[in-house]
Parts: sequence; structure tokens; C-alpha cells
Amino acid sequence: MKVYQDKFEIRTSKRTELIDMTDKVEDVVRKSKIKNGICNVFVPHATAAVILNENEVGLVGDIVDKIEKEFPVGAGYRHDRIDDNADSHLASSFIGQSKVIPLNDNRLLRGTWQQVFVLELDGPRNTRKVIVTIIGE
Amino acid sequence: MKVYQDKFEIRTSKRTELIDMTDKVEDVVRKSKIKNGICNVFVPHATAAVILNENEVGLVGDIVDKIEKEFPVGAGYRHDRIDDNADSHLASSFIGQSKVIPLNDNRLLRGTWQQVFVLELDGPRNTRKVIVTIIGE
Amino acid sequence: MKVYQDKFEIRTSKRTELIDMTDKVEDVVRKSKIKNGICNVFVPHATAAVILNENEVGLVGDIVDKIEKEFPVGAGYRHDRIDDNADSHLASSFIGQSKVIPLNDNRLLRGTWQQVFVLELDGPRNTRKVIVTIIGE
Repeated sequence: MKVYQDKFEIRTSKRTELIDMTDKVEDVVRKSKIKNGICNVFVPHATAAVILNENEVGLVGDIVDKIEKEFPVGAGYRHDRIDDNADSHLASSFIGQSKVIPLNDNRLLRGTWQQVFVLELDGPRNTRKVIVTIIGE
Repeated sequence: MKVYQDKFEIRTSKRTELIDMTDKVEDVVRKSKIKNGICNVFVPHATAAVILNENEVGLVGDIVDKIEKEFPVGAGYRHDRIDDNADSHLASSFIGQSKVIPLNDNRLLRGTWQQVFVLELDGPRNTRKVIVTIIGE
Repeated sequence: MKVYQDKFEIRTSKRTELIDMTDKVEDVVRKSKIKNGICNVFVPHATAAVILNENEVGLVGDIVDKIEKEFPVGAGYRHDRIDDNADSHLASSFIGQSKVIPLNDNRLLRGTWQQVFVLELDGPRNTRKVIVTIIGE
């Protein structure tokens, strides 16, 4: 049994944006040499999230549209009296900044249509950190 | 410390449906013989999810109703130009395909009203896979 | 590699309320003496949840408002025929009762604005249980 942890950074270019980081997470999995266990993907941010879904350009647009509709900017929030991103914090709180994916034979046991995305909710940002922690044997 | 992983399949019969899989997850826990640790329940699908809640028939209906209201079918989504299940992907992205439950004395430390459900969002399907990974000692 | 598990209780005073439990979770982390790994924070309840976000008084109010708007009390739910908290179960199901945070050097790798909250959805309650499980080395 061992723990392997690595970090990487992602640059975002829009206020609300999905960035596919599957390759980067899978690089960490390979480097870990851990065969069986779990992989936690975490963003240490209160205005970003992690989601797993299909990287189809239309769907990616639908997810962004849905977030902007459900968490509208500047809708009279109290937090906006001291900042301008209450909507981003709300979406991050509801969707979550952490996912756990099982591993087998040193590969993520994700489905065919299950890519790993950072969800930027208050971009653009030069550096969004992603922490990948793998535990197993 | 060890890792124990097992899979099972579930058949679904409606487009949106909750299937209680608590017994199946607890079977895996027993077989693992792991006493203390964590249990990850994961569906490798982009149009399903995992939730923990009470298996009361009225509530199960309320959850289905809420999903159908919040993620309506065919509401002009871009993904529906190439498929017909954008609503299913959206609900799966927001609710999530993975949960982690603590273990003690070889039992899930779930609450009295916390059953483990697969949430089907684009059924019916003959086989929805569930991957259970337990890590502990 | 080892597992360390501890529990604590929280008293809540409103129907919908966020309680910052970061200090309590970090106490468990310190006691565990585990340096690297993951920390699972779990509430064994079907009408509460766990969220990570900023403890700013305006934002805390915004989160409560958003929950009450998205999951209104008594909106004709079937579960309310036998109880009065269908809204609480729905919010708990959607937001989730479990989060995983990475650890490094015996500290939570959370962001500056990422406090750990219990989200009470059907209070007030004398005792809401929180189970913290840490796995690592």
C-alpha cells in the first residue's frame, strides 16, 4: 500500500469554462505505479469545481449555459457587497471541488464518456491548482 | 492495509429511476473483510449518478420529479443536435457519479435513512455498472 | 499506511444553517499523525450535507437563501404526506453528505477560502454526527 500525490496547474481563459484535464490526471496515475485503489482529484479553490462527463463540444456549451442560468451573476447576493463572485462560490459549493475515481491495473476505471474536467467558475485565471492523490497497492 | 474491489451490474427500467443497491454494496463490504476505512461507490457512466438518501416511496418519487423539473428533456440543448440525452448528462455532472462512505467494524457507517442508490438518468438500460472499492485495514 | 477515524457532534440552531467545522476536522488530522493521504468528512444523515467554501457572513447567507429558493419547503412533495422535510432530503441528495480532501505534511491541502462546513437542512438538532476518516502514511 502506498500514497502518491502530485499537483499541476491549469490556465483558464473565460469566466465559466470547462477544461479537460484527463490526460494530466492519467499521467499522475501512470507515474504512481499504483495498480489498484482510488484516485482523488481536488481543486483547492472556492470558485472552481471538478466534474466528470463527456467532452463533446455541444455538451460542454450546455453545461456552461446551465451553470450561468442556475447561478446568475449579480443577482442581489450579499457577498457581492464586498466582492463580485457570489454566483461562482454558490456553483462551486453545490457542484463540489473533489471527485474520487477507482483504479485498476494502473488505469482509471472511468467510463468511455467520462472525462475529468476542471470547472472554472470565476476566470480567467493564470493558475488553477489541481491536486491528485492516489492510494492503493 | 489492503484494497478490495468488486463490480456488479444493475438493470434499469425507466428513463429516470432510483435503484436501491445498499444490499449489494454491503455484500462487497462483508467479502472485503476490511474492518476500518472507506468505501467508494462509483458508476462509470456519464448519464447516471450515485446518491445516498432514504428509501421511502414518496421521497423516491420526489427526487425523480425534482430531477425532471430541474433538468428538463429537450430544452434546446446543443448536445441534442447529435444525441437526445443532454438533460441526462447535465444531471449526472451536477449530482456526481461517486460517493465515499466510511467503514467501521466491517460495516458502512451510514445513517439510518441513508440507503445507497444508483440514479439512472437515461434508461432503461440492461447493464449499468457499479464499481465498489474499499481501502482500509 | 494506516487508517485513523474519529467522530464528533455538532448542535444546530436553525432549519437551514452552515456550521464551520474546519477546526474540528483539523484537530482530527493532527491527532491522526498521518502525513500524506486523504481525509473523508461524512455526515451519516439524509437531511444534512457537507460543503467546502468561504466563511464570509454574506456568502453564508447567500448559500442558505439559494438552498431555500431551489428546495422550497412544502412544495407539494409526496414525502410530506408522512413527514414535513422532503425539501431537506432533496437538498441533501443533490449536494451530498461526503467530501474528500487531500493531506500533505499532516495538513489539509485546502485552499485559503475553503472552510469545511456542515450544512444543516432540517434543524435545529441537538446532535448532528460528523465522521472523519483519514487514510495515508
